[in-house]
Amino acid sequence: MANLDFDRAARRGAPEAILCDAKSTKQVARIARAIREHAERSGSEPALPTLFTRLDAEKAAAIREELPGMAYDEEASMGAWPASEPGPTGGLVTVACAGTSDLPVAREAELTARYLGRPTRLIPDIGIAGLHRLLEHLPELRESACIVAVAGMDGALPTVIAGQVACPVVALPTSVGYGVAAGGVSAALTMLSACAPGIGVVNIDNGYGAGHLAAQIARWAPRETE
Amino acid sequence: MANLDFDRAARRGAPEAILCDAKSTKQVARIARAIREHAERSGSEPALPTLFTRLDAEKAAAIREELPGMAYDEEASMGAWPASEPGPTGGLVTVACAGTSDLPVAREAELTARYLGRPTRLIPDIGIAGLHRLLEHLPELRESACIVAVAGMDGALPTVIAGQVACPVVALPTSVGYGVAAGGVSAALTMLSACAPGIGVVNIDNGYGAGHLAAQIARWAPRETE
Amino acid sequence: MANLDFDRAARRGAPEAILCDAKSTKQVARIARAIREHAERSGSEPALPTLFTRLDAEKAAAIREELPGMAYDEEASMGAWPASEPGPTGGLVTVACAGTSDLPVAREAELTARYLGRPTRLIPDIGIAGLHRLLEHLPELRESACIVAVAGMDGALPTVIAGQVACPVVALPTSVGYGVAAGGVSAALTMLSACAPGIGVVNIDNGYGAGHLAAQIARWAPRETE
Amino acid sequence: MANLDFDRAARRGAPEAILCDAKSTKQVARIARAIREHAERSGSEPALPTLFTRLDAEKAAAIREELPGMAYDEEASMGAWPASEPGPTGGLVTVACAGTSDLPVAREAELTARYLGRPTRLIPDIGIAGLHRLLEHLPELRESACIVAVAGMDGALPTVIAGQVACPVVALPTSVGYGVAAGGVSAALTMLSACAPGIGVVNIDNGYGAGHLAAQIARWAPRETE
Amino acid sequence: MANLDFDRAARRGAPEAILCDAKSTKQVARIARAIREHAERSGSEPALPTLFTRLDAEKAAAIREELPGMAYDEEASMGAWPASEPGPTGGLVTVACAGTSDLPVAREAELTARYLGRPTRLIPDIGIAGLHRLLEHLPELRESACIVAVAGMDGALPTVIAGQVACPVVALPTSVGYGVAAGGVSAALTMLSACAPGIGVVNIDNGYGAGHLAAQIARWAPRETE
Amino acid sequence: MANLDFDRAARRGAPEAILCDAKSTKQVARIARAIREHAERSGSEPALPTLFTRLDAEKAAAIREELPGMAYDEEASMGAWPASEPGPTGGLVTVACAGTSDLPVAREAELTARYLGRPTRLIPDIGIAGLHRLLEHLPELRESACIVAVAGMDGALPTVIAGQVACPVVALPTSVGYGVAAGGVSAALTMLSACAPGIGVVNIDNGYGAGHLAAQIARWAPRETE
Amino acid sequence: MANLDFDRAARRGAPEAILCDAKSTKQVARIARAIREHAERSGSEPALPTLFTRLDAEKAAAIREELPGMAYDEEASMGAWPASEPGPTGGLVTVACAGTSDLPVAREAELTARYLGRPTRLIPDIGIAGLHRLLEHLPELRESACIVAVAGMDGALPTVIAGQVACPVVALPTSVGYGVAAGGVSAALTMLSACAPGIGVVNIDNGYGAGHLAAQIARWAPRETE
Amino acid sequence: MANLDFDRAARRGAPEAILCDAKSTKQVARIARAIREHAERSGSEPALPTLFTRLDAEKAAAIREELPGMAYDEEASMGAWPASEPGPTGGLVTVACAGTSDLPVAREAELTARYLGRPTRLIPDIGIAGLHRLLEHLPELRESACIVAVAGMDGALPTVIAGQVACPVVALPTSVGYGVAAGGVSAALTMLSACAPGIGVVNIDNGYGAGHLAAQIARWAPRETE
Repeated sequence: MANLDFDRAARRGAPEAILCDAKSTKQVARIARAIREHAERSGSEPALPTLFTRLDAEKAAAIREELPGMAYDEEASMGAWPASEPGPTGGLVTVACAGTSDLPVAREAELTARYLGRPTRLIPDIGIAGLHRLLEHLPELRESACIVAVAGMDGALPTVIAGQVACPVVALPTSVGYGVAAGGVSAALTMLSACAPGIGVVNIDNGYGAGHLAAQIARWAPRETE
Repeated sequence: MANLDFDRAARRGAPEAILCDAKSTKQVARIARAIREHAERSGSEPALPTLFTRLDAEKAAAIREELPGMAYDEEASMGAWPASEPGPTGGLVTVACAGTSDLPVAREAELTARYLGRPTRLIPDIGIAGLHRLLEHLPELRESACIVAVAGMDGALPTVIAGQVACPVVALPTSVGYGVAAGGVSAALTMLSACAPGIGVVNIDNGYGAGHLAAQIARWAPRETE
Repeated sequence: MANLDFDRAARRGAPEAILCDAKSTKQVARIARAIREHAERSGSEPALPTLFTRLDAEKAAAIREELPGMAYDEEASMGAWPASEPGPTGGLVTVACAGTSDLPVAREAELTARYLGRPTRLIPDIGIAGLHRLLEHLPELRESACIVAVAGMDGALPTVIAGQVACPVVALPTSVGYGVAAGGVSAALTMLSACAPGIGVVNIDNGYGAGHLAAQIARWAPRETE
Repeated sequence: MANLDFDRAARRGAPEAILCDAKSTKQVARIARAIREHAERSGSEPALPTLFTRLDAEKAAAIREELPGMAYDEEASMGAWPASEPGPTGGLVTVACAGTSDLPVAREAELTARYLGRPTRLIPDIGIAGLHRLLEHLPELRESACIVAVAGMDGALPTVIAGQVACPVVALPTSVGYGVAAGGVSAALTMLSACAPGIGVVNIDNGYGAGHLAAQIARWAPRETE
Repeated sequence: MANLDFDRAARRGAPEAILCDAKSTKQVARIARAIREHAERSGSEPALPTLFTRLDAEKAAAIREELPGMAYDEEASMGAWPASEPGPTGGLVTVACAGTSDLPVAREAELTARYLGRPTRLIPDIGIAGLHRLLEHLPELRESACIVAVAGMDGALPTVIAGQVACPVVALPTSVGYGVAAGGVSAALTMLSACAPGIGVVNIDNGYGAGHLAAQIARWAPRETE
Repeated sequence: MANLDFDRAARRGAPEAILCDAKSTKQVARIARAIREHAERSGSEPALPTLFTRLDAEKAAAIREELPGMAYDEEASMGAWPASEPGPTGGLVTVACAGTSDLPVAREAELTARYLGRPTRLIPDIGIAGLHRLLEHLPELRESACIVAVAGMDGALPTVIAGQVACPVVALPTSVGYGVAAGGVSAALTMLSACAPGIGVVNIDNGYGAGHLAAQIARWAPRETE
Repeated sequence: MANLDFDRAARRGAPEAILCDAKSTKQVARIARAIREHAERSGSEPALPTLFTRLDAEKAAAIREELPGMAYDEEASMGAWPASEPGPTGGLVTVACAGTSDLPVAREAELTARYLGRPTRLIPDIGIAGLHRLLEHLPELRESACIVAVAGMDGALPTVIAGQVACPVVALPTSVGYGVAAGGVSAALTMLSACAPGIGVVNIDNGYGAGHLAAQIARWAPRETE
Repeated sequence: MANLDFDRAARRGAPEAILCDAKSTKQVARIARAIREHAERSGSEPALPTLFTRLDAEKAAAIREELPGMAYDEEASMGAWPASEPGPTGGLVTVACAGTSDLPVAREAELTARYLGRPTRLIPDIGIAGLHRLLEHLPELRESACIVAVAGMDGALPTVIAGQVACPVVALPTSVGYGVAAGGVSAALTMLSACAPGIGVVNIDNGYGAGHLAAQIARWAPRETE
């Protein structure tokens, strides 16, 4: 049924993650068992954890039947097995988000980067309707090797941040919004249209992808870039 | 062929404007003649000028056959007859634009507000990729009774401005842009999705409509609002 | 978690509003507590109320644990703390809506304008399929300093109204509709395409934004404009 | 190459029309020859003319090589052979259009209905931004057996008319417009979303289709319906 | 709250219909009461029934508290008060639908035309994937003064029918479909793009609008047109 | 109510399938009865089974009241009556899918091809993020007479496969995805845009259509094509 | 600059085709030279010709400098080198098109299938607005191993044909159309939504892709299938 | 008119680039003069060159009047002043493109990264329809610190590459394509939907933005990463 890509950690530097919301509990449990059996066959726990994304509590319980030590973060809907975070290396990944409602996706991005071995920081609620909140955080933002800028609605946060810093910005649109902004397409278009260079956009609500990309970007950077 | 709405100045406070680009030179000329004849019948020049928008040089020449005194601004592609601007009343209308390429539309908005009787000011090239340019202009922006914020591409300028001022902001998307921003739809969506309240959006490239709305908004305000 | 913009009332003339539907009950309650604590620190109730929009009964109850005196309007799904409306100043804001189903959004717009200090009036059900209903209300419409025109489906009401009055019209599309009009995008496009000038469009179902903009527009106007 | 549907007049009451803009001059000329040869074979001119739509002057000249008597209307870009209009029967078809720029499409609709045998009338420039222009024409509109309402931009004219009359309204969106209204899709959506019943919509700029449908609708009606 | 258009029957030949799904039960009941009171004031039952569309069983019960004699058709989700159908006049309205799933909308169209006074007929399940089913019904289709062609998915039925008959065709797209056809937009586009003339399109799932238009079209026609 | 196309097996080589999700249980049961009665009239079971697609357990039970021997596959949500698969003829149909979540649609395609008489094979989870999984299966893929490539999200699988094989590829987009990929439109567009020739696309989630087309394509091919 | 896929004929059964319209004349000429040099190195002309698609006369002349014997079909804008068609094998590929304007794309499909070794036939102008034209050709259509159905505007031809035949249908939408059908997207959606199974859709105006797929489909079929 | 952001090099590590296609020749020349004057005021040439993007030959000539030493690359439509490339530091930026027609945009990305100080390499024409071309280049791709993957049409190249490497991939969609792929939106959607993590997407045809982002990403990396 599933054909796991166990070669991925060697090839890409990070193991395959399991997107759980479009899979049944039974499918997720079977995948967890395959991961356990693979680890047993190789005789040691993997160096980097496998991440389970968009994981609700029920499926998390089913996975723990197979992988008892899995860590589970409810806000980010994310599981990690083995649970231990690798000692951080590389530059700082900062996740900045525009509003309170963007927090679950922002937290998914942050956790992903941390489980891939980067030091991380989360700055919530610095939407551009009150610019002083963002400007106050400029020194922190400028220390980063990569910034994940999370926003729904008008999606303008990444442009404003990118215009103020020297490091790359990963733009992460969220589906938070209503009217023409419903579903996040409007935010994604804004981010692709950003007039400041230095921005790479990921799919709407793809906190995992944003965190993964940020961890790759910050891999070679020093701990503090300024 | 055309059925001019000569009652509009009385009913709405401003005469009907003539959108010229979708009309033939012959049609435009006939409309100009009708305006002249109407003025002759009423025995006096109208208090407020009739505006001819999206007017190219060739059609402007044809209109001047009928209305010799028409003013013509090439950058804004706008004609005005009679040419005299009314003495300004009401609050200041500031037109702020994000980039050099937005200038023709911005200028159309500014001229419209001025011909409708408001004092105006134009601030070019304060796109949010370099926030300091905008912040330097905050005192001027805060004197305004209404700000027209003009932007293509990501269209984020109106949100950032509205978050800093107390007066209404008219958001004017432009068709300047390429890729997903081509045609201005992306900018229009951003502006409708703005997370700062106090913004009213007009159609893409509708400098006339933005200037008209701004002039109405600033009508009752004092010359300086702060 | 949340980073409230307490400076907004000073900077913009109105406090930050809290959009509640995309936040959890726990998040909303924590924000209410922060507002209470801020008021306690400053030693007096704020002059203008904080608005809680898209607020359902359950979250309203949670807020009242922190802010017992909050007013709550069920039709508009809106809370206000402190509950007292400021004595009205400025010109009349009229909210006119096309159909019975548009009433909740219309009421949200009206309440917002009132809590921001304007005198308001609501005219329900004057859709353009029966033009006489609109024409009968022309005298009332012409007294207004700003009109919020609310419509779903074809969204043609703002154009028809704007063509008859001298004051600005805020066009508020609603998601009422089905088929190609589902979700309100069709209404929003109609309003942006309006052939009458003097219209500023806000996001679909954004009653708060429309009321806020209208209150700003009517701020300097006399109580009766005609 | 072409396989003309000569049976159509018998089956449908009107001959096949030839849409010329997507055909080469050579193709159009060959079709004209086939029509001539078919008429020669049947020994008499057809009762109803064949219409050539979206016909420019160059192709019209090529057709006249084969069908010398073809009538050609430049404004409507339409040819008709044989040139004589059938004596009108059935109810009045009124074509009402919103703006000067909609005239070519409106004229195509009017001519089509006339060549299909209906009495017709054209009312130009009664856009809803100045409602009095429309209201003045109500008596004429109410005499009609079918009204073709032509509009670009916001496309609101058909709803307003349909709300005032008892006969069916054919809504004909035009591609006149810019910004979100460019190409006419916005007008088409408005017309499909019309809150007044009694409206059938045709494709953008499809003057021929609108005139054809109107002629069918008015076929059985008395000359004056009120 | 509601402002009923009681003048509509005189002005348009049919009373205002009440679209119930976007209204609360309380709103619907209040409207029913207003209709009863208006009838009581005028001293007689209206000649044509008021239709309640998209009416579920619960709201139907609430209406019957006010208007006890209301007829209710569950398949069409339609109520009618007074319940009696007017004796049919004018030409035959045929409603032809492509699939079993389109029946509720088709039935809404048929009932509407019947309550507006036309003789009607319903032909179910003649989708064009099996052309013989349609061809067998050609004689019935050709007797009609107007045909409502109902289809979801590819929406090709109206074109095929219109190509075979002399009467107007009302094209009624339905939201039946999945994938790119979900929601009915694909069907609506097909119908607007139809290469056969003589088709007027209404909004997706707008059975009421289609039946109303068909009844108007067939008003003057003889009972049998061929 | 339903008008079954019993002629289809003779005309097209496969009986009409019944799409069940948009029909009520009662409608589905009535159709099952009509199929049984038709079989009883013709005196023998049909050679090829009738398929019931998008069939949930409740409707399956209702059908079995009429057609007791119906086979039912829960994963594919598909019923078949009579239950026996025809002995396979023609070339191999391989169904390859990109992810675990695409399995239900993939299985629907496979079962359809098998019930239409082809030998089939299913290869799950060979998404292109781990190319080796696909390359390992190349020998199997090259034995096929037709490959159904199933993918949601970026929908790139069919292009990659088509570039490696000589047989036709049926591209089957699924609605598995989120953000800009939600609903499958993005996958469908990718497949239509494929730069490798030899691909025919079906509607999103149309496993039945893909399997049907594949069975037709493989009809004349030898059992092994390489 | 270009990196030709000379392995393709061995791997896929047909050589790489060169899409010429997005390449400069210089680029096309260099590719032609690379093809000539490759043939010279391998010492023999290839068995199947290389096709140059969307090739205008100027670029064709440039190619002939390198490949003097190239065949060039102006209507299909297609070149082929070597010029000789392979002796036909497999089943008949029929290309049926809806209108005269679809002929260039239809001819591109036909020529492609012929150069890939299939017997072909072209049936022009059998649009469904006159169904008899299609029905007259049913016997020819039923002899085919694969039918390419070409249509713009409403795009309904493939469904109607597929409903009448047992062989696969390749649906080829064209950009012929205007209004909502402009560019061919409407036709493509119709074809994906077809309610008749047995249809695979290719990109708009992709005559080459359609002919290629049809040739693959018909590869194993007998010369006459009925 | 223009308000250059001379602070950008200090703030962001790269000077402001001038997008020339939406500016008039006169505007471009004035900006060039301002750059020259600024350099004269600061007394030394800047360390990093200012880039002029989408620069045609005519505007390039106008710039050279002001900045005689400007380098100009015709294929990339890019100018650079001062002309000297900084000695490369950081990791290798590889630009890989799918087809010959994508070369201008790919070259713009490569030049941008080089002028920002990175070592670069360009791999043309490795589209996924012939996978071996891509697989042959894997060793080169794996040496890179960042890969810019350029593709139009189906836009699948970035996913396939990202699945094989450990470094970040910048996905650069191009407007090369036709039918549903016209304009590049389809490619952009595919890239955002990529099922392989590690991809950041930029706007369609935004070679400058892609090269800028890649240069930032590769800034801290060693010259060879594997």
